[in-house]
Amino acid sequence: MASTILPLELVDRAIGSKVWVIMKTEREFTGTLVGFDDYVNMVLEDVTEYETTTEGRKSSKLGQTLLNGNNIAMIVPGRGPEDEQ
Amino acid sequence: MASTILPLELVDRAIGSKVWVIMKTEREFTGTLVGFDDYVNMVLEDVTEYETTTEGRKSSKLGQTLLNGNNIAMIVPGRGPEDEQ
Amino acid sequence: MASTILPLELVDRAIGSKVWVIMKTEREFTGTLVGFDDYVNMVLEDVTEYETTTEGRKSSKLGQTLLNGNNIAMIVPGRGPEDEQ
Amino acid sequence: MASTILPLELVDRAIGSKVWVIMKTEREFTGTLVGFDDYVNMVLEDVTEYETTTEGRKSSKLGQTLLNGNNIAMIVPGRGPEDEQ
Amino acid sequence: MASTILPLELVDRAIGSKVWVIMKTEREFTGTLVGFDDYVNMVLEDVTEYETTTEGRKSSKLGQTLLNGNNIAMIVPGRGPEDEQ
Amino acid sequence: MASTILPLELVDRAIGSKVWVIMKTEREFTGTLVGFDDYVNMVLEDVTEYETTTEGRKSSKLGQTLLNGNNIAMIVPGRGPEDEQ
Amino acid sequence: MASTILPLELVDRAIGSKVWVIMKTEREFTGTLVGFDDYVNMVLEDVTEYETTTEGRKSSKLGQTLLNGNNIAMIVPGRGPEDEQ
Repeated sequence: MASTILPLELVDRAIGSKVWVIMKTEREFTGTLVGFDDYVNMVLEDVTEYETTTEGRKSSKLGQTLLNGNNIAMIVPGRGPEDEQ
Repeated sequence: MASTILPLELVDRAIGSKVWVIMKTEREFTGTLVGFDDYVNMVLEDVTEYETTTEGRKSSKLGQTLLNGNNIAMIVPGRGPEDEQ
Repeated sequence: MASTILPLELVDRAIGSKVWVIMKTEREFTGTLVGFDDYVNMVLEDVTEYETTTEGRKSSKLGQTLLNGNNIAMIVPGRGPEDEQ
Repeated sequence: MASTILPLELVDRAIGSKVWVIMKTEREFTGTLVGFDDYVNMVLEDVTEYETTTEGRKSSKLGQTLLNGNNIAMIVPGRGPEDEQ
Repeated sequence: MASTILPLELVDRAIGSKVWVIMKTEREFTGTLVGFDDYVNMVLEDVTEYETTTEGRKSSKLGQTLLNGNNIAMIVPGRGPEDEQ
Repeated sequence: MASTILPLELVDRAIGSKVWVIMKTEREFTGTLVGFDDYVNMVLEDVTEYETTTEGRKSSKLGQTLLNGNNIAMIVPGRGPEDEQ
Repeated sequence: MASTILPLELVDRAIGSKVWVIMKTEREFTGTLVGFDDYVNMVLEDVTEYETTTEGRKSSKLGQTLLNGNNIAMIVPGRGPEDEQ
């Protein structure tokens, strides 16, 4: 059996790496994770925001950004929405 | 009468196995459960996300993914949305 | 006057029996109750999910399922949506 | 001035009597109150559920039912939606 | 400067008087306040419920009613929606 | 650098003055702030409620009003929606 | 690896500077941050509110404004929605 990884451990390991964050409101962000707290509020750097509209996916650049943890639905470390796996 | 199983006990037994997770927002995921915490935040590996659109069910592959426990509606261990029972 | 029954007492008495659970999102489940905790997170076995669509009621089979207590609107022990009373 | 009645006191006095419960989701129930707890989770007996559709009000019969207190918007002891006052 | 009035003090002064309560779901009630608790759950007596539909405002009479405090958006003591100020 | 002002300090300084309050449900109020508590439940006096409809902005007068703090999105001391800045 | 920045540390460093705040309801604000508390309730000064309508983006000026932290989705220090990066 694989060794277990606690949720906050996964976030901690992602410090300094790219993460992809999807909010409950369906906004999506990628950026380098530079910090987080116990509520999984997250600080990202070199952020790109993705919006899916009826005309396709648009992106815009942001600097350091603080995301409210209770508005985050899921976190994918190491890649973004446009990377193939 | 069957012996009882506590909710967190069910999640704990699923460590290392496939689980199917349905979010309150109707997003669905399957993957191997690699960890969870008391808030049932979950870490999955080899994740497939399923989206139901008007043209049918689409799937996309994700790596390790952290799902926010307070956004999870239900968890089905051992199978996915496309497995027959 | 009838003797009183506390809510968690009602759930506890239903262990090993069929229950019908209606979620806040209007999803409905029946299954055998095998466990629950103080947040009324519930573990069901031999689960049937019911969806009401414009073409009528559809059902699908699930195995053991964990339902998030804060997403549950109501619980009816001893019967399902298709049983006559 | 009338003597005051605390909210839980009103619920406690209704034990053994008919109550009408309206959920935040607009579902409505009447039944005999057989128990409740500090979160105003309620156990009803001989329950009728009322649904208001575009074709009028439909009702269906349920047995013992547990209603999640945080989904309850209001409680009217002693009568139902179809009783004249 | 006017002397201050704490929120619960305003509610307490309204005991025995008419209050107008507007729920988060836009339902509106007037009635005589007979009790409340720390969560501002409220017991009203001689209640009128107001619904605003596309055909105008309809009202219906209820007896004693318990309103769930976390569903209340605002409280106006001493008058109702149809009183001129 | 400007000296800092804590959120509750801003509210406390506004006692006796006009405030403009915008609820999460987009209802808007102005009035004289006469009190508040730690949950930023607020008591206003000489209240005007503003509703924005497809035909423009309508206003109506209320007396003392208690606003539920967890339903408040933002507070602007010293002015209202119709004041030029 | 970059040194980490805790979420509240990011907010604290932004005191006296311009911040861009996006609410869960999609309202957007920029202003000078003059204070915040542990719930990330924020006090802004020289505030501009941005609304995105079908006719494009409109802005309006506000003075000191208190934003309810649990309604904030994200915070971007140092710039606004109209600044190029």
